[in-house]
Amino acid sequence: MALIVQKYGGTSVGDIERIKGVAARVAGYCQQGHQVVVVVSAMSGETNRLVALGQEMADGDPDAREMDVLTASGEQVSIALLCLALHNLSIRARSFLGDQVALHTDDTHGKARIKRIDTNHLEQALTDGCVPVVAGFQGVGSDGAITTLGRGGSDTSAVALAAALKADECEICTDVDGVYTADPRLVESARRLDHITFEEMLELASLGSKVLHPRSVEFAGRYDVPLRVMSTFVEGPGTLITIESENMEQPLVSGIAHARDEAKLTVSGVPDIPGIASKILGPIGRANIEVDMIVQNTGADGLTDFTFTVKRQDYHQAQSLLKPIAEEIGAREVSGDNEIAKVSIVGVGMRSHAGVATRTFDCLASENINIQMISTSEIKISVVVAEKYMELAVRALHSEFDLNNEELPQ
Amino acid sequence: MALIVQKYGGTSVGDIERIKGVAARVAGYCQQGHQVVVVVSAMSGETNRLVALGQEMADGDPDAREMDVLTASGEQVSIALLCLALHNLSIRARSFLGDQVALHTDDTHGKARIKRIDTNHLEQALTDGCVPVVAGFQGVGSDGAITTLGRGGSDTSAVALAAALKADECEICTDVDGVYTADPRLVESARRLDHITFEEMLELASLGSKVLHPRSVEFAGRYDVPLRVMSTFVEGPGTLITIESENMEQPLVSGIAHARDEAKLTVSGVPDIPGIASKILGPIGRANIEVDMIVQNTGADGLTDFTFTVKRQDYHQAQSLLKPIAEEIGAREVSGDNEIAKVSIVGVGMRSHAGVATRTFDCLASENINIQMISTSEIKISVVVAEKYMELAVRALHSEFDLNNEELPQ
Repeated sequence: MALIVQKYGGTSVGDIERIKGVAARVAGYCQQGHQVVVVVSAMSGETNRLVALGQEMADGDPDAREMDVLTASGEQVSIALLCLALHNLSIRARSFLGDQVALHTDDTHGKARIKRIDTNHLEQALTDGCVPVVAGFQGVGSDGAITTLGRGGSDTSAVALAAALKADECEICTDVDGVYTADPRLVESARRLDHITFEEMLELASLGSKVLHPRSVEFAGRYDVPLRVMSTFVEGPGTLITIESENMEQPLVSGIAHARDEAKLTVSGVPDIPGIASKILGPIGRANIEVDMIVQNTGADGLTDFTFTVKRQDYHQAQSLLKPIAEEIGAREVSGDNEIAKVSIVGVGMRSHAGVATRTFDCLASENINIQMISTSEIKISVVVAEKYMELAVRALHSEFDLNNEELPQ
Repeated sequence: MALIVQKYGGTSVGDIERIKGVAARVAGYCQQGHQVVVVVSAMSGETNRLVALGQEMADGDPDAREMDVLTASGEQVSIALLCLALHNLSIRARSFLGDQVALHTDDTHGKARIKRIDTNHLEQALTDGCVPVVAGFQGVGSDGAITTLGRGGSDTSAVALAAALKADECEICTDVDGVYTADPRLVESARRLDHITFEEMLELASLGSKVLHPRSVEFAGRYDVPLRVMSTFVEGPGTLITIESENMEQPLVSGIAHARDEAKLTVSGVPDIPGIASKILGPIGRANIEVDMIVQNTGADGLTDFTFTVKRQDYHQAQSLLKPIAEEIGAREVSGDNEIAKVSIVGVGMRSHAGVATRTFDCLASENINIQMISTSEIKISVVVAEKYMELAVRALHSEFDLNNEELPQ
């Protein structure tokens, strides 16, 4: 008997029949003697519908607090319907909103961070033989207001609950049956991985692999929650995300990730003096715009060019924030490009093998793809290329690192 | 400068444009220097949609706790959208869910009763120059669960808030421009009343006049909250509901109400011994079925027939509850009719005038309408007739008591 936290995304609870399917799946786990805590997203399309309503009403820039009230209603509908479906199968179930758990967050509406989770109500429900069905994506701020964790936040809710409850496993049940070596829609020969390390998954998630929200992986890694990505609809083991084992033979590269919705901004001709980076990025961070890659080149004239990437949706806001800063610090100009994409090679095996970077650059050069920016970590190499070359780059690298090969040791 | 609680129903917030209209109306009050607390219902059709989803999921008898979670999401959407619309007009506004007010209720899910309202959060918002926008229909139970007050409960929320805040007036803004002498859809010559007493309004509301929820009128009367029914869409004074003034010349009859969704149940051949009524009605009450009229006739044989009316929707449940009781108390049979309607004559003027009952019965007899049950109070006479005669009865009585006459003293 294990304690399992299961998260079902919007597609999994997209209509009455699918919610009944999820209930049957949960009931199966209960009948095997497991204790299950379920986290659900809003029915697919619902969050978008609510966001559109809010934006239509506000003519553009809606108040974040009220948007959270609006969008959180989507998960509220899902938890109630899933409880009713579980009752139909004679499974005791009780719904929990973010503030009923309670899942405490900071007050950054729309992108709140989890601060602390009370588990006593959930534990009481489990002791009562009840399946707690928790609204994902939402929490409660310090003043009792509804907060939301941002898009994909239900994954984070699930992992955070699993960590707080010390669950045996956290299952992310979705419409794909695991983590692949690349997006199967781009690369036909992409393979499902049986397991992958947290570090790799974190890089993949951050780098645009849509399977898991990066914050959820970070949480899972930090609190050592075994995390499994699996299909709601098809039986199968999915992909288990675990701590790296020294005994495990690691492939050189585990997967190729891509992110299409990127944009880059360059502040050129900046006096190369200490504190310039924080002057440029400070206001961007305070506006809650996530900065991804940062590159700084120093020229011969004591001036420097400062380039960074943001999500494409934040491009225009970042641009207008930069203009007064550029003027203040005496920069020459602010330029940008929002038709770029990021392609990344991820694998813990890189640590012990040189030459992955060289192979990457050679491979792209042989396809005549120009690299605009480069960023590396211990287990990852990311390059920014023009968006139109993205698919070509992913396919070429997938082949270069033998990921098509079924015989590769896993 | 006054403190006004305004309630807007589902039709008033039925789409984005209408919500903008409500925001403009609220802004107008603010600009006149009034403090406004707004209570809103779910967008029209939304509660029905959610109830249908829940019933589809549960195959009939959904868990009341989870239905409250489900249906309460409708008001959550409305309050957020109205706040966004008010922000557009540069009006500061903040949304409040039932538990954020907090509006404390008992734990009767689906039909909860208000126990106590905390006003400090709302008062703080008003002090901050903010318009509190409160989700009607919902509250919080003793265990922190969402509760709902039942259909029409938003009226009750509004009046209860007005009472708790000691507001100067509670305005129920709806799609009709006031209270009429009869339903204008049935009686073309029906007139809008400038004012009416709480008692009369309470009788009218209980008797099926759809304008106000009876509990809201009861609350308003008990806590002496001046209540005004008015149109959201058309300017006008509406109908003010006030305490009866001795100086006010009262019309004999203020209005004719009708209720179509009624059903009656008869337990025949019951031994006429003390305690029989509570034996029959106890289980009905415990199932939260509202009983309206009760009539008991004693026959010559020591047996009695016991008849009562319920809402038509509760007819089948009441019937199945009655069968074992009838057996237990040795009654002859349980029979019923769910094609009945109730027509009522209401007016505080009846108190000081005899003969209203006689005129009522004569009027119906002259139309050949058979009276099945009669119930009277100080200011009301109700009769149950076959549903098919209802409209005829309302028109005949409206004319009989000169309600068509424009010269009637108000």
